[in-house]
Amino acid sequence: MIDLQNLLDDVVGDIRPLIGHGAAADYIPGLAAVDTNQFGIAVATRGGEVYASGDATVPFSIQSISKVFALALVLAGNGDSIWKRVFREPSGNPFNSLVQLEHEDGIPRNPFINAGALVVTDRLLTATDGSAAEAVRRFMRDESGNPGIESDAEVAASEARNSHRNASLAHFLASYGNLENSVDAVLDAYIAQCSIAMNCTDLALAARFLASNGRKADGTSFLSASQTKRINAVMLTCGTYDAAGEFAYRVGLPGKSGVGGGIIAVMPNNCTICVWSPGLDRSGNSVAGVAALDALTMRTGWSIF
Amino acid sequence: MIDLQNLLDDVVGDIRPLIGHGAAADYIPGLAAVDTNQFGIAVATRGGEVYASGDATVPFSIQSISKVFALALVLAGNGDSIWKRVFREPSGNPFNSLVQLEHEDGIPRNPFINAGALVVTDRLLTATDGSAAEAVRRFMRDESGNPGIESDAEVAASEARNSHRNASLAHFLASYGNLENSVDAVLDAYIAQCSIAMNCTDLALAARFLASNGRKADGTSFLSASQTKRINAVMLTCGTYDAAGEFAYRVGLPGKSGVGGGIIAVMPNNCTICVWSPGLDRSGNSVAGVAALDALTMRTGWSIF
Amino acid sequence: MIDLQNLLDDVVGDIRPLIGHGAAADYIPGLAAVDTNQFGIAVATRGGEVYASGDATVPFSIQSISKVFALALVLAGNGDSIWKRVFREPSGNPFNSLVQLEHEDGIPRNPFINAGALVVTDRLLTATDGSAAEAVRRFMRDESGNPGIESDAEVAASEARNSHRNASLAHFLASYGNLENSVDAVLDAYIAQCSIAMNCTDLALAARFLASNGRKADGTSFLSASQTKRINAVMLTCGTYDAAGEFAYRVGLPGKSGVGGGIIAVMPNNCTICVWSPGLDRSGNSVAGVAALDALTMRTGWSIF
Amino acid sequence: MIDLQNLLDDVVGDIRPLIGHGAAADYIPGLAAVDTNQFGIAVATRGGEVYASGDATVPFSIQSISKVFALALVLAGNGDSIWKRVFREPSGNPFNSLVQLEHEDGIPRNPFINAGALVVTDRLLTATDGSAAEAVRRFMRDESGNPGIESDAEVAASEARNSHRNASLAHFLASYGNLENSVDAVLDAYIAQCSIAMNCTDLALAARFLASNGRKADGTSFLSASQTKRINAVMLTCGTYDAAGEFAYRVGLPGKSGVGGGIIAVMPNNCTICVWSPGLDRSGNSVAGVAALDALTMRTGWSIF
Repeated sequence: MIDLQNLLDDVVGDIRPLIGHGAAADYIPGLAAVDTNQFGIAVATRGGEVYASGDATVPFSIQSISKVFALALVLAGNGDSIWKRVFREPSGNPFNSLVQLEHEDGIPRNPFINAGALVVTDRLLTATDGSAAEAVRRFMRDESGNPGIESDAEVAASEARNSHRNASLAHFLASYGNLENSVDAVLDAYIAQCSIAMNCTDLALAARFLASNGRKADGTSFLSASQTKRINAVMLTCGTYDAAGEFAYRVGLPGKSGVGGGIIAVMPNNCTICVWSPGLDRSGNSVAGVAALDALTMRTGWSIF
Repeated sequence: MIDLQNLLDDVVGDIRPLIGHGAAADYIPGLAAVDTNQFGIAVATRGGEVYASGDATVPFSIQSISKVFALALVLAGNGDSIWKRVFREPSGNPFNSLVQLEHEDGIPRNPFINAGALVVTDRLLTATDGSAAEAVRRFMRDESGNPGIESDAEVAASEARNSHRNASLAHFLASYGNLENSVDAVLDAYIAQCSIAMNCTDLALAARFLASNGRKADGTSFLSASQTKRINAVMLTCGTYDAAGEFAYRVGLPGKSGVGGGIIAVMPNNCTICVWSPGLDRSGNSVAGVAALDALTMRTGWSIF
Repeated sequence: MIDLQNLLDDVVGDIRPLIGHGAAADYIPGLAAVDTNQFGIAVATRGGEVYASGDATVPFSIQSISKVFALALVLAGNGDSIWKRVFREPSGNPFNSLVQLEHEDGIPRNPFINAGALVVTDRLLTATDGSAAEAVRRFMRDESGNPGIESDAEVAASEARNSHRNASLAHFLASYGNLENSVDAVLDAYIAQCSIAMNCTDLALAARFLASNGRKADGTSFLSASQTKRINAVMLTCGTYDAAGEFAYRVGLPGKSGVGGGIIAVMPNNCTICVWSPGLDRSGNSVAGVAALDALTMRTGWSIF
Repeated sequence: MIDLQNLLDDVVGDIRPLIGHGAAADYIPGLAAVDTNQFGIAVATRGGEVYASGDATVPFSIQSISKVFALALVLAGNGDSIWKRVFREPSGNPFNSLVQLEHEDGIPRNPFINAGALVVTDRLLTATDGSAAEAVRRFMRDESGNPGIESDAEVAASEARNSHRNASLAHFLASYGNLENSVDAVLDAYIAQCSIAMNCTDLALAARFLASNGRKADGTSFLSASQTKRINAVMLTCGTYDAAGEFAYRVGLPGKSGVGGGIIAVMPNNCTICVWSPGLDRSGNSVAGVAALDALTMRTGWSIF
C-alpha cells in the first residue's frame, strides 16, 4: 500500500519552488487579488478516505471546474440530448474563442470551452426551472458533506462587471438559436456557478463519482458507468483548455482546470485528486498544480495509459 | 477469463450490417480500387497470443498507422528533441490542413497530422542515414515475425502521382526551416512508409510494445514505460484525425487510424487490437472498424476511463 | 449633354428582367415582408438637379447606407481620431464576422462592416451627447430638403428583437475596450440609424457632398476635399461587403449598399446615384441595383478608372 | 499646365528624409543586398512624354509589378476565362497566405496575391507555348523602347533557392486541379517574370496602356477600354497586398507594388507614375515610394476619387 499522506507531503516538497510562479487570472479583479503563494492538494479514495497537504482547506473560486458538474447534472437528468447542441471534440483554440463557432454554425466544439459550457448551463437552467447554479451548489454540498458551500458574491459581482466576452459568446449562440433561456439568465447562472468557492478536500470528495462508475457518496447511482467513462474521456481530450494534449502527455489522467487555479483529476476506479495554486500558465492552467499532478503520477505510476 | 475467440466472432456478427458502409479513400486510385466488403479484426495479448476473425490475414495499406511507428522509432533513437519541432495538441482541423501551420509558424500541432508526420519522417531519415521507410518495415517484420512485409509499389506510385497536398505541406514546412532533408527525400520516405501493406494480425503484433511498457516481442526494451504511456496519450488526443474526441468518447482507448481503413487500439498492459474495413466516414476513419471497437469495448468493458 | 431622364428610363428597361430576382433580407421580419418587385433609380447632379425613374419616391430602409453618413459626421466633428479605433482595409470576410476581430485585437477592419460601424456610432453617440441617430436623420433632412425623414419604428423593433449577432459584436468590442458607451446605448443608436426610411431621390440628394468635395446643399463646407475623397476611397474598397472587388470591377464607382436593397454610388465631381430593389444576392447587395449601376455606367462611360 | 519636372524634383525633396527607411526584402538574398539609399520617380504622359527625377534610370527587380503585365497579356489573349480560376476580391490576408485558398477550394482571391499570380502565369504559359516570361519581357521592351530589358539571373537563382513558400502554394493549387502546367514549369516562369530588371522610366512607359484605354505606344489596341478600366479596378482593390485600403485612402490612384521597392500608379486618361526605393514597410510596400505618391497626389490633386 502507498502511504498517501507521506506521498502528498513529498509532492508538496517537490513542487514548492514553483509555488507563486505564473500569474493569477487578471481579467477579473476578484481573482487577481488572490495571494499566489498558496498551494493545496487532496486525494479522495473511492472508499471515502481523504488525504491532504498544504492549503487544502482554503476555499478558492472553482471557476471552470464547475463545468464538469453542470455537465454531469445535465446528463443525469436529460440523457444524451445535450450532444445535439454541443460537440465533444478538442477545439484547438483558446477557451473563449468565437472563431470556431462561426465556422461551425453556432455548435460549440465541446462542453468545457466557455461557449459549450453556456449551452450546458442553459440546458440545466431549463431542467431545474431556473435553479442551475443552486443545483450545482446542492450537489457539491451533498457529495462533500459540507453544507456551507456557497457562491462568492464578490467574485460573482466582479465577473458580472467583466463579462463582455461571455456575453458576446452567449449572444452569438442565441443568434444561431442555440439558447433556450435569455442571454441574461444564462450569464447570471453561469457566473454564479463559476464563482462557487470550495477547498481541495471538498472538491476531491465531490468529484468522487467520476472514480466510482457514477455512484454518489451515499452509494446510489448518479450516472451509469458508461456515462461516467465518457465524461472522463471528454475531460481528457478537452479539460485543460488548449493544453489538453500536453496535460494528457505529462499527467496521463483525465482532468479539468479552472482559472481560479484549481484542477481536479481522476484515477478511474481508484481516487480523485484536487490541486490548487493560483499562479497560471499561458494556457490558463495552474503552474504548481500541473507540476504537482505530474510529480504525483510519477511517484505513484498512476496513469490511464 | 474472456473467451476472446468467441468474442471476436460475436463482434464481427454485431457489425456485419455496417461492412461496406462508407467509401474507400478516393484521392488515391490505388486505395479507391479496394473492395469495401471486407472486415478483419485481431487481438494480440501482452503475452503474445493472437486471436482473430474475419479478413484478418488480408494485407491492406497501413497509411497513417505508420505514423505511430515512425514516432516510436524517433523517440527510441533521439529522445525528446523531436518535440521542439512538433507540438502534441489536437488540431481541431482536418489532417491535411495548412491553416494552423501558418498561424503557428510552421510547427505542426501533433505528429499524427500529415504535417507533423512529415517532420517525424524527416527526423527519422536523418537518424537512419536515409533509410526511414526501411527502418519502419524492419520493425514491423521483427515484431510481427513476418519477414515478407513490404511497401506496396503500386500504392506508392499512385500516392506519388497524387501528392500535391503533401508536397505543399512539405514545402511549407521547409519555408519555415522545419525540414532537415530535401522535400523530395521526405516525400519519398513518407509515401514508402504509408504504403506498407500489412494484415490485422501482423499489425496487432507489431503494436504490442504499446501495451507492454515499451518492451519488444523478444522482451528487450524499446521505449521506457513513460515514453510508451506518452505515445498512447498522443494517440488518444490526436490519433483519429478531427474525430479524436468522438473516438475517446465511444471507444475509450488510445487508437490510430489510417485512410486504408485500418485502426490500431491499445488496452494498456493488456493487449493491442487491429481492425480493418476500407469504407471510411467523413473524418477518414473506418466505419465498420470504429463500430467494431465500440462493440468490443462494450462487450469487454475495456476502457482506460 | 446626356439626356439623363431618357437614360434612366432606358436603364430601367435594361434591367427589368432582373427585378424581383434575389431574396429580401430574411433575418429581420420587418425587411423580409417587403415586396421585391420594386425598383427605383435617381441621379442628383452636383448642381442639384434630380432625375429619377421607377419607384424612386418609395421609401425603403437604408440600413448600412447609413454607415457612410455616420462616418462623415464623425469625421466632420472629430477629425481623424476615429482611425485609431477602426482600420480601413477590406475585410475578406462577411459583414458580420467576428473572426477578424479576434485575430486583430478588437479593431474592426473598416467602418462599413458591422463591427466598425458600431465603433463609429459609438463615437457619434459621444460627440452628440447621445443623439447619434437623430444627427444622421437631421443631416438627411437638411440635405434632401425633406423634413419628414424618420426611422421606421416597426423595422427598428424588428431589428431589436433579432439583434443577437450585433449584440455579440458589440460585447466583443467592449471586451477589448473599444466602446465608449454602453452596449445597449450603442445598439439602440445603431438600430435607429439603420432603420431610417428614405427614397432614392432623397438619398441621392443627401449624398451629394460626396460628389462635391464635401460641400453641403447650401454650399457650405461639411468636409474637406481630401476627407471627401478618402470616404469615397473607403467606399470603393469596403462599401459592398465581401463583393467590393467585384463591384469595383463591374461598376467602377465608389458605392455603399444596404440590406434593404438600396445602393448609393458616386461619380466624383459630377453626381450621385441611388438605386433600390429589395432582392439581394448572396453577398447582400441588390441584384437589380448592381445591374442597373452596371448598365448606367456602360451607357454613360462613367467610371473612376 | 503643371511643370512636371519641377514638381517631381520637389517631391524628391519632400520625401528625402524617408529614403533609406524600412528594410529591403530579406527573404531573397539577391534583393536583401540592394542599397536602400536610392529613390527614383518617373511620370509618362499618355502622349509619351517622360519626366523623371532621382535614380529613375537605375534598374531594379520589378517583382510583383510583373503580375499586372502578365494579367494584361492573358486578358488580351484569352478574354475573361481566367476569371473562372481566380477571384477579384481583396484578400484580407498577407500576399503569400494559404489560409484563404483552403477555405475557398483552391481559387485564389485575386490575381495579385502570389497564388493568383501563379494561376495567371500558368495560363500565360499555356497561351505562349511555354514562353510566359519572354512574353512579359517582350512587351516591356516594345512599350518602353528599351530592347535591353532582361530578367536578372542572379535574382532569379536567389529566388529559386528560396521558393519553398511559392512551391507550397503551387502544389496546393495543383492539388485542387487549378494548374494546367507542371509545378516546376510554373515556378520557373513565375520567378523569371518577377526577376525582370527595369528602371522607373521604362516601367512608367510600359504601363502607359493603363492610362490610355488599352492602347499601346504605337497606337494600336492591346486591350479594350473596359478591360483596361477593370485592371485598374483590380489594382485599386488588390494591388498593394494587405494595405490596399490604406493605399486607396492615402494615394487615391490604382497602384501595384513589388517587394523590389517599385510601385506603378495610374492616373486614368492622363499618365502613369513609377516610383522606386528599396526600403519596405510591414506590408511589403516601399516606404519612400508610397510617401512620394502621397506627396505627388497632394501637390497635383490627382485622384480618381
